[in-house]
Amino acid sequence: MSIIVQKFGGSSVADAEKIHRAARRAIKAKLDGHQVVMVVSAMGKTTDKLVALAHEVNPNPPRREMDMLLTTGEQVSISLMAMAIQAAGHEAISFTGGQIGMITDASHTRARIRSIDADRIHRELDAGRIVIVAGFQGVTEEGALTTLGRGGSDTTAVALAAVLRAVCEIYTDVDGVYTTDPRIVPQARKMKEINYDEMLELASLGAKVMHSRSIEFGKKYNVPIHVRSSLTDTEGTMIVAQTAGMEDIVVRGVTLKRDLARVILIGVPNQPGIASRIFARIAENKLVVDDIIQNIVEHASEANIGFTTSKADAREARMVCEQLAREIGVRSVELDEDLAKVSIVGVGMKTHTGVAAKMFQALADARINIQNITTSEIVISCIVAAADGEKAVQVLHRAFELDKEQ
Amino acid sequence: MSIIVQKFGGSSVADAEKIHRAARRAIKAKLDGHQVVMVVSAMGKTTDKLVALAHEVNPNPPRREMDMLLTTGEQVSISLMAMAIQAAGHEAISFTGGQIGMITDASHTRARIRSIDADRIHRELDAGRIVIVAGFQGVTEEGALTTLGRGGSDTTAVALAAVLRAVCEIYTDVDGVYTTDPRIVPQARKMKEINYDEMLELASLGAKVMHSRSIEFGKKYNVPIHVRSSLTDTEGTMIVAQTAGMEDIVVRGVTLKRDLARVILIGVPNQPGIASRIFARIAENKLVVDDIIQNIVEHASEANIGFTTSKADAREARMVCEQLAREIGVRSVELDEDLAKVSIVGVGMKTHTGVAAKMFQALADARINIQNITTSEIVISCIVAAADGEKAVQVLHRAFELDKEQ
Repeated sequence: MSIIVQKFGGSSVADAEKIHRAARRAIKAKLDGHQVVMVVSAMGKTTDKLVALAHEVNPNPPRREMDMLLTTGEQVSISLMAMAIQAAGHEAISFTGGQIGMITDASHTRARIRSIDADRIHRELDAGRIVIVAGFQGVTEEGALTTLGRGGSDTTAVALAAVLRAVCEIYTDVDGVYTTDPRIVPQARKMKEINYDEMLELASLGAKVMHSRSIEFGKKYNVPIHVRSSLTDTEGTMIVAQTAGMEDIVVRGVTLKRDLARVILIGVPNQPGIASRIFARIAENKLVVDDIIQNIVEHASEANIGFTTSKADAREARMVCEQLAREIGVRSVELDEDLAKVSIVGVGMKTHTGVAAKMFQALADARINIQNITTSEIVISCIVAAADGEKAVQVLHRAFELDKEQ
Repeated sequence: MSIIVQKFGGSSVADAEKIHRAARRAIKAKLDGHQVVMVVSAMGKTTDKLVALAHEVNPNPPRREMDMLLTTGEQVSISLMAMAIQAAGHEAISFTGGQIGMITDASHTRARIRSIDADRIHRELDAGRIVIVAGFQGVTEEGALTTLGRGGSDTTAVALAAVLRAVCEIYTDVDGVYTTDPRIVPQARKMKEINYDEMLELASLGAKVMHSRSIEFGKKYNVPIHVRSSLTDTEGTMIVAQTAGMEDIVVRGVTLKRDLARVILIGVPNQPGIASRIFARIAENKLVVDDIIQNIVEHASEANIGFTTSKADAREARMVCEQLAREIGVRSVELDEDLAKVSIVGVGMKTHTGVAAKMFQALADARINIQNITTSEIVISCIVAAADGEKAVQVLHRAFELDKEQ
């Protein structure tokens, strides 16, 4: 009998009605002949509310106690889900992370899974029960409660699917992974399949379907992940290792990262260790760098070093850089607050040439100025003016014919 | 070094400010040289809200899942309390019931404590930490979460005090145990001491300071219990085995139980097993009987059998009795909905005569009609008209000179 792990996020269990809807979905899978494990998140905005409560009591809440607090959110959801399934006349049992032996390290608020004891789950499944597991949480060997950090419930679901050799269904408020944001390009198509690496890039480039950590987990253990809607029965998108005609599809999707800013240090002395000193200082101030931009001028005594960051961090980033500029003798610090990053993603890029040229030409034809370019094996990104962002996405979606069945 | 267990109820941890106030009290006890264990309840009305949520999902929620749900309330409180103490610069660590080995039987929603592993608590106390334990909860040997039922946090506190050989302080919104309700008798006095048995009777007669189960626990293990205010520093009431001049004080307190109703079956056939059949039916319908009233008429073929119950249950009790009446051939069923019970309590009664007579005379002098009398070793109760209830309390408080220092 095949096992399905179904994961329901906070918005899919936000109230009694939604809990019943999720319960019906699990029951249907069971009646279809599967053994069903559900992983549920905290209801709606519960986690945010608990975090706010903690900060009311202690502006710098200790991590161990934060985990003690936050794990209650999922515990509420699993008990209600079990009640809902039993109300519908089916057997169900809920478990905290600790109760199913989800052992993690002791890095509170960002723990890593060490092992999972699947025996208890198998026993309950074999007894005909739907098993409901609290997402996002585990325990240390010593029994302290831990949480897995952002995207933790997805990670729980994929990890469980790995040990149970199950398919993992991620129920969410979108019905799959699209070639781009349909709000920007109405012709955007839902993909039937996508490769783990492509999905990882889409996730890190701002597609909010799943957190990249759980996709990495899926890739490592080769777990088939089905991203689908909690509202409809239509098929979503399968995330797998090998997609049909994988090499033939050059570009799989287009992403837009908005609200970027760029800080450039102009005239940085060309000395060894300068770049590391700059980015160490940035990290000390807990500023998150998106991409690093460096204009290397050979044999020159000066260089320009810059980076993109979120608009929210931009002013502080400039202040930190201005302080640095005084210390190391940089000519000036420039800030551009109105930028966006448009990227194309596809595993097929590896084996096709001319992809970058086609991208740049398409943007040029639309009179969109490229302010910076970064590339990786399966991604090409261009920094453009914020005002050009959506247009750039539309142009690239059309240029690579993503609106057509592939 | 002496250990103090401090228990804070829901109203004493209802918001961030109150949590900080409770935290300061624990810190003060620590600075005074004690080792401190705190037991906390769920914040304010949390438990009620969770129960309502459960009923929204399932009108008849399974008990195991109810415990999974309700235990989250205390878990939130303990984490916030630990955060508050750490915010004040002191060391603290929180534990769920399971984490300190509070092992119970598997009677979900009303579990009984089997054992407590004090080692972990001693280790943390010896390391200089304030230990914060979730009240109301435990785990079975198999690791399922359980709750201890009504008054559960008091029970947790007293049980911990028993195994730690500690004094148990119960912080609440009243500043001790009074000779009667001060809202009825402004001259009511706070008692310095009270005996376990007297306190048990007061609790079962409606004094809401502590649940009787935790007092029984205290009596069994001889735990000194200090009931005191969470708002002031004044001494409260000590509940102990032996009070000073215990035998000399005939009446310790006067209680009033309001909103009682009485159902009487008139003309019940005088056959063996009839009474048991009546009260079995009452129990099946989950109606709670306060006192049983039976007029035995010797050699007669009929008797009158009745009982008092809460006003809320009265109509349903009458319906159940009317059905019964048809089945067993009872002449009629009478219902009186407007009654109250006034009681006097005191261990000294055992060794003094004339207490009942004095009570009846005092009520008669005030022209209060006694509708029924029930007695136990240390309690005498009279059923009176609801309208006479408060007056009866005032009269008895004066007659037994409870307003004077004893």
